[in-house]
Amino acid sequence: MDATRPLDALNVSRNKRILVELKNGRQFIGLLRSFDIHINIVLEDAEEHVEGELKRKLGVVFLRGDTIILISPA
Amino acid sequence: MDATRPLDALNVSRNKRILVELKNGRQFIGLLRSFDIHINIVLEDAEEHVEGELKRKLGVVFLRGDTIILISPA
Amino acid sequence: MDATRPLDALNVSRNKRILVELKNGRQFIGLLRSFDIHINIVLEDAEEHVEGELKRKLGVVFLRGDTIILISPA
Amino acid sequence: MDATRPLDALNVSRNKRILVELKNGRQFIGLLRSFDIHINIVLEDAEEHVEGELKRKLGVVFLRGDTIILISPA
Amino acid sequence: MDATRPLDALNVSRNKRILVELKNGRQFIGLLRSFDIHINIVLEDAEEHVEGELKRKLGVVFLRGDTIILISPA
Amino acid sequence: MDATRPLDALNVSRNKRILVELKNGRQFIGLLRSFDIHINIVLEDAEEHVEGELKRKLGVVFLRGDTIILISPA
Amino acid sequence: MDATRPLDALNVSRNKRILVELKNGRQFIGLLRSFDIHINIVLEDAEEHVEGELKRKLGVVFLRGDTIILISPA
Repeated sequence: MDATRPLDALNVSRNKRILVELKNGRQFIGLLRSFDIHINIVLEDAEEHVEGELKRKLGVVFLRGDTIILISPA
Repeated sequence: MDATRPLDALNVSRNKRILVELKNGRQFIGLLRSFDIHINIVLEDAEEHVEGELKRKLGVVFLRGDTIILISPA
Repeated sequence: MDATRPLDALNVSRNKRILVELKNGRQFIGLLRSFDIHINIVLEDAEEHVEGELKRKLGVVFLRGDTIILISPA
Repeated sequence: MDATRPLDALNVSRNKRILVELKNGRQFIGLLRSFDIHINIVLEDAEEHVEGELKRKLGVVFLRGDTIILISPA
Repeated sequence: MDATRPLDALNVSRNKRILVELKNGRQFIGLLRSFDIHINIVLEDAEEHVEGELKRKLGVVFLRGDTIILISPA
Repeated sequence: MDATRPLDALNVSRNKRILVELKNGRQFIGLLRSFDIHINIVLEDAEEHVEGELKRKLGVVFLRGDTIILISPA
Repeated sequence: MDATRPLDALNVSRNKRILVELKNGRQFIGLLRSFDIHINIVLEDAEEHVEGELKRKLGVVFLRGDTIILISPA
């Protein structure tokens, strides 16, 4: 288990619902479809939430890695 | 499908209409003509929208990748 | 056409008038003389515009790529 | 001891509870499961704290390295 | 002429007076003595100007490239 | 002495008390245990100070290099 | 002289008194002891000045290059 790397944790969440929070405070929830070493993320069935409320549905969304603060199972 | 990478999702949107949101809150909608690994984007028939309203038409526009937060089909 | 890359779109604008918008909101219009992979840009006959009004004429101007948000034909 | 490097100190905290503080002032406490050279961090049993109060429980959380200011045993 | 690169334009200004504007709005005018690929700049007989007024004389000044927005003949 | 490099100065401070100031104005004082080329720093017996007053004791603390402004013997 | 590079100008100032200004407006004056390609700087007999007034004496100080705007002989 000591050998795990942070990207392994993302890999476990592939095709599962995750929460992604951005530096500007925005929150996206969706199915993790893919990611890369820059932490660029593609979500499917993505929704943007503001203070716990659904703001809009986006379908597929590409999030640029350098805007991301945290990722967690939703 | 597990093997897909974030840039593959952009490739699927080539020549389709996409929404691009920048760090400063601006929104651009246009035909995705090209992109690269820095997420530099070229749109055709591009329009800038502010709070859902058309602000201006730009034709071809080059958007520098490091200003981009998200990309989604329009 | 699918093979085009974002820098190809800039190349098409070489020696044509372009609009360059910076992260701080400033706008420059001029003849695109050269650019590089960092999106450093050199304009000739460059003018700075503020809210559509000519602010000053600069002649040749070098714009550092990391300050640029968008580039579009003028 | 002179040969130690900063990442060695993180390695000592593996599977122990740590405090992670982000550039935007947020604090996370959890079990350090993994990290990499970018200081990307994965915590388990993670909690977000605001001014010493528990704000929410997150379970597993991936924190992007470039948002982190400090890491310390909790 | 199509083959010129942005740094070639800086090279033409070597030993000539240039204006350098920084991200924080400050302006420096001086003789361009040297530059490198990071756009680090050394000016001689440099002056800082604020809103068109001479603020101070600096002699030789090294300006770190990542603080620079634009460079233009003075 | 001309051959010294900045990291040599940090090396001289190893196992001595240093002051580290961050971009957000926070100050940490502690024993310099290790550092690397990114200026990531590990302090032992670390204390955070605010305007000269002790704010909290942290024990071991890892400080990410890109948040640091200055380092000086304490 | 055309061959000089920006770092050569810093080299000329080695062991001489220089002024270093940071992005946050702070000013340091001291003997330039060493620097590297990141423009990390070590000063000796360093003083911090605020609006021309001596604020504090620091002795040796390491300044991280990415916080620096300009360097000039003091």
